[in-house]
Amino acid sequence: MDKIKVAIVGYGNIGRFSLEAVDAASDMECVGVVRRNAASAPGLEGRKVVSDISELGKVDVAILSVPSRKVEENALKYLSMGISTVDSFDIHTDICALRSTLGPVAAEHGAVSVISAGWDPGSDSVVRALMQGLAPKGISYTNFGPGRSMGHSVAAKAVEGVKEALSVTIPIGTGLHRRMVYVELENGADFEKVRSAILADPYFCHDETHVIAVDNVDALNDMGHGVNLVRKGVSGASHNQLLEFNMRINNPALTGQVLVMAARAAVRQAPGCYTMIEIPVIDMLEGEREALIRSLV
Amino acid sequence: MDKIKVAIVGYGNIGRFSLEAVDAASDMECVGVVRRNAASAPGLEGRKVVSDISELGKVDVAILSVPSRKVEENALKYLSMGISTVDSFDIHTDICALRSTLGPVAAEHGAVSVISAGWDPGSDSVVRALMQGLAPKGISYTNFGPGRSMGHSVAAKAVEGVKEALSVTIPIGTGLHRRMVYVELENGADFEKVRSAILADPYFCHDETHVIAVDNVDALNDMGHGVNLVRKGVSGASHNQLLEFNMRINNPALTGQVLVMAARAAVRQAPGCYTMIEIPVIDMLEGEREALIRSLV
Repeated sequence: MDKIKVAIVGYGNIGRFSLEAVDAASDMECVGVVRRNAASAPGLEGRKVVSDISELGKVDVAILSVPSRKVEENALKYLSMGISTVDSFDIHTDICALRSTLGPVAAEHGAVSVISAGWDPGSDSVVRALMQGLAPKGISYTNFGPGRSMGHSVAAKAVEGVKEALSVTIPIGTGLHRRMVYVELENGADFEKVRSAILADPYFCHDETHVIAVDNVDALNDMGHGVNLVRKGVSGASHNQLLEFNMRINNPALTGQVLVMAARAAVRQAPGCYTMIEIPVIDMLEGEREALIRSLV
Repeated sequence: MDKIKVAIVGYGNIGRFSLEAVDAASDMECVGVVRRNAASAPGLEGRKVVSDISELGKVDVAILSVPSRKVEENALKYLSMGISTVDSFDIHTDICALRSTLGPVAAEHGAVSVISAGWDPGSDSVVRALMQGLAPKGISYTNFGPGRSMGHSVAAKAVEGVKEALSVTIPIGTGLHRRMVYVELENGADFEKVRSAILADPYFCHDETHVIAVDNVDALNDMGHGVNLVRKGVSGASHNQLLEFNMRINNPALTGQVLVMAARAAVRQAPGCYTMIEIPVIDMLEGEREALIRSLV
């Protein structure tokens, strides 16, 4: 079988871990990394690094390891070239809109887009959907952390005057979270202005958020994260069905791995745009179909 | 939208709870119950009870709430009539063979068969497959119980000389289980013969099994059950990824609910035979697709 030819677009945290996950998958090969300036970077020694994906020859799937707000423009560009895309777009409220935008473009060019393929949204969404089916009446709570939220850290870092930022998510139960935002300021930045801008940001404005100035954000950084997803509900007419999913994980490593699952699934779906709950889980796995059924069902 | 027309085939524990789950689903209606002798039973007042499914008019899906060893003959019969079937076939080693047998018949008659749609195999299989994708290198353990195993209880009850049986599954860690089998003997039955027959049964011969004679099995019966599914593994090159899924549930109620999920999915798949890991989770859920994506992804 031909290996799935994967390009990594963007080489930040997620790009680096996605590359490791592609390397670990025996049914894939990374044909190159796309970066704005085509510069190599630590970890890319001996890799093809380009500024334009067309320099890589045939690419089946582009893993978009770019910030959520850059996903749409990147996906539209590659889908229009007939290259499938996967991303970990994590702005929950905008997922349906992204799906509606990318779907027709993907279909028109015979490509597949798998969106919001991180761990939440992403693999957690699959578990949440399954739990909803198992106990259709009831309440689910997704409790994150404690751990660094990449999306929130990027959002805080994007605020003017912030040199480096770390947003730690603290679960306070029933799906509510406290955000502890540690910021390293630019020289001369006004902490109160930074603080106000962070508190007003859509990533933070719905949660209890504390902004703390520190000298060195890097000294606080740990990529561990976790989730506790619970549902108590009713199956048929039977109450008190108790369901729970827990993870304690390296956050970008899991995101990179889910992107690889999505990339594999992308080459197995009909053209169009999909969230992970719309894809059979078996299509995300490496290996022969009957063997997977034999070992996993 | 027309409601999905569901027939319940067999009216034991699973049939009863499946009926409750169908009644609780606003996109389905139970058009009748098929029983060998067409006799009504407590809980079936006002229902159509027939001995032949053709008396029920149009049926989209037959929920086969029959013992695992009766699934194949029932499924072949209904699939040949163009009626889709779902079952909770739970003999793990024979799932691929069942899938191979039913698949061509389903396809030939434009029907869908969803097999092994209980909670294990079934919804647990979806979680196991997902966990395998999230940490491709590593070990998963499925720890059941404590709780009554329906499949094992039925197998023990089928042994000659046994009037009633209860098999309780006790998790002893790392996917190993003790089977505590409580048997109520027929008059004159030889306990040692019963015990030997149970220990030799394929359901029990691989586990530490204790057979205990009691006066009244019913006094011990509780339908609660549970599972602890764990995986520790590697995402990309990052070790120590810790994943866990727990349930404490009414066992037949959850099985009935999963059969309803499978019945809903059956009308949305192309003809053929599927295990649950081969079906997008969203197809198992009640509700409009975009609304589900908005609330669950």
